[in-house]
Amino acid sequence: MSFRRVTVVGLGLIGGSFALALKKVGVQVVGVDEAAVVDAARARGAVDSGGPDLEEGVRGSDLVVLATPISVILDHIRRLAPVLRPGTLVTDVGSTKRRILARSSELPDEVFFVGGHPMAGKETSGLDAADAELFRGAPWCLVPREGTPGAALQKLENLVTALGARPVAVDAESHDRAVAVVSHVPQVLALVLAHQAASVENALSLSGPAFRSLKRLAESPFSVWRDILETNEDMIKEALSEFERRLGEARDAVPRLDAHFALARTPDHD
Amino acid sequence: MSFRRVTVVGLGLIGGSFALALKKVGVQVVGVDEAAVVDAARARGAVDSGGPDLEEGVRGSDLVVLATPISVILDHIRRLAPVLRPGTLVTDVGSTKRRILARSSELPDEVFFVGGHPMAGKETSGLDAADAELFRGAPWCLVPREGTPGAALQKLENLVTALGARPVAVDAESHDRAVAVVSHVPQVLALVLAHQAASVENALSLSGPAFRSLKRLAESPFSVWRDILETNEDMIKEALSEFERRLGEARDAVPRLDAHFALARTPDHD
Repeated sequence: MSFRRVTVVGLGLIGGSFALALKKVGVQVVGVDEAAVVDAARARGAVDSGGPDLEEGVRGSDLVVLATPISVILDHIRRLAPVLRPGTLVTDVGSTKRRILARSSELPDEVFFVGGHPMAGKETSGLDAADAELFRGAPWCLVPREGTPGAALQKLENLVTALGARPVAVDAESHDRAVAVVSHVPQVLALVLAHQAASVENALSLSGPAFRSLKRLAESPFSVWRDILETNEDMIKEALSEFERRLGEARDAVPRLDAHFALARTPDHD
Repeated sequence: MSFRRVTVVGLGLIGGSFALALKKVGVQVVGVDEAAVVDAARARGAVDSGGPDLEEGVRGSDLVVLATPISVILDHIRRLAPVLRPGTLVTDVGSTKRRILARSSELPDEVFFVGGHPMAGKETSGLDAADAELFRGAPWCLVPREGTPGAALQKLENLVTALGARPVAVDAESHDRAVAVVSHVPQVLALVLAHQAASVENALSLSGPAFRSLKRLAESPFSVWRDILETNEDMIKEALSEFERRLGEARDAVPRLDAHFALARTPDHD
């Protein structure tokens, strides 16, 4: 492994899982979070040391992983700009990428930044739910800021691969447009469906597995979604408008949806 | 158990699971399906005897379970009307109820009909996927035709309970309106989302668990849905129109969906 010492900032589900997975591949891990969380992470073997101080926590690390909500990531990039030593690689796990990549331009040229987004998750959050195997088989978006040396991207790709994930290099715009449709639109659909079902007599008591999995999605906490919705508002609204257009067409076609069904079973169709 | 001999017509996933569960509680089961399917069901211990002939298969049974696609159930009710002996109870497992209940009025008054719909399923279909435990914990709608004696409904409720399911008495109209929103609308949403995602670069390769479960839903075969869409067209279109209205409101509200999230976490809200 080409990183000797990694600092993980934010030891929630994703940061905690990242830390556990790093320890498993033999990396020294420093955690930055509230003291009680760092203590719990040390007890679980997710970090070797750490504490609440960001600037102190990143000292001497060759990789810094920002794993807090997006608004805090944006703040941390600004705070880290004057303290990181040249050659440090910074990455993050935020669910939208344009705003974060834009902010990364405030880092000095000698600090490398590759935005990241592991497409993995769970219905539960927090360090208690962390799992070294969370990323196995999952796509992991990597979005290098302009001018990042290929070697820095390669090192991160190797790390992500060592954690069992599948690195996917994309640009921030393409990432945000893609997750709008595969992640953010489904969340809004689940919310709307949950509301509508609650307004129909017997609907909740007659629900089967498909509805129940959407209902669980609808019950995600807003705290997880606030920053995502704010930093991807334009792409989400665009994808929802397109969805509404397609949904209107499908409604008109009911019950003759044979072509819709056939197309959905065709790999990589439009 | 108050049924001595039960005929299950159609030994697919639901009929096969029903038959297996009946055998488990000690009931004698006759299967009606193609000869090869009945043979396979006998080999699995799902039926004691049976064959392809409907009229012969129902002879001497005190309960007949119609477990084919809805259009075939409708046909079978008409064919059974002149052959069933007085006191026979007929039920079905079709996913919509109004059309079937209307057809049940063709049965003689001395034959009892209670429509049924177990809210259970799997992504795979057919006898091979059948499972005696499929219905455990699932709601099971029961819709008695007008004039059905309370004792007949009670016998079926007892049976459904013995199979581990939870009987829910509803009328056909309320059932079809409820399943439109919790089952049929999600299916259309999944189809539309799968199409839209296929049109966006990188979207399929960046999908996480939420999208993938919707994608699997979209890949249900049309053969399962044809009759459902045809027999519930009005309710589905009404529910989709209402969904579109609510979705437009949600889109306008992005990114300020805090109230949407809060409401979705409130039990039995509107």
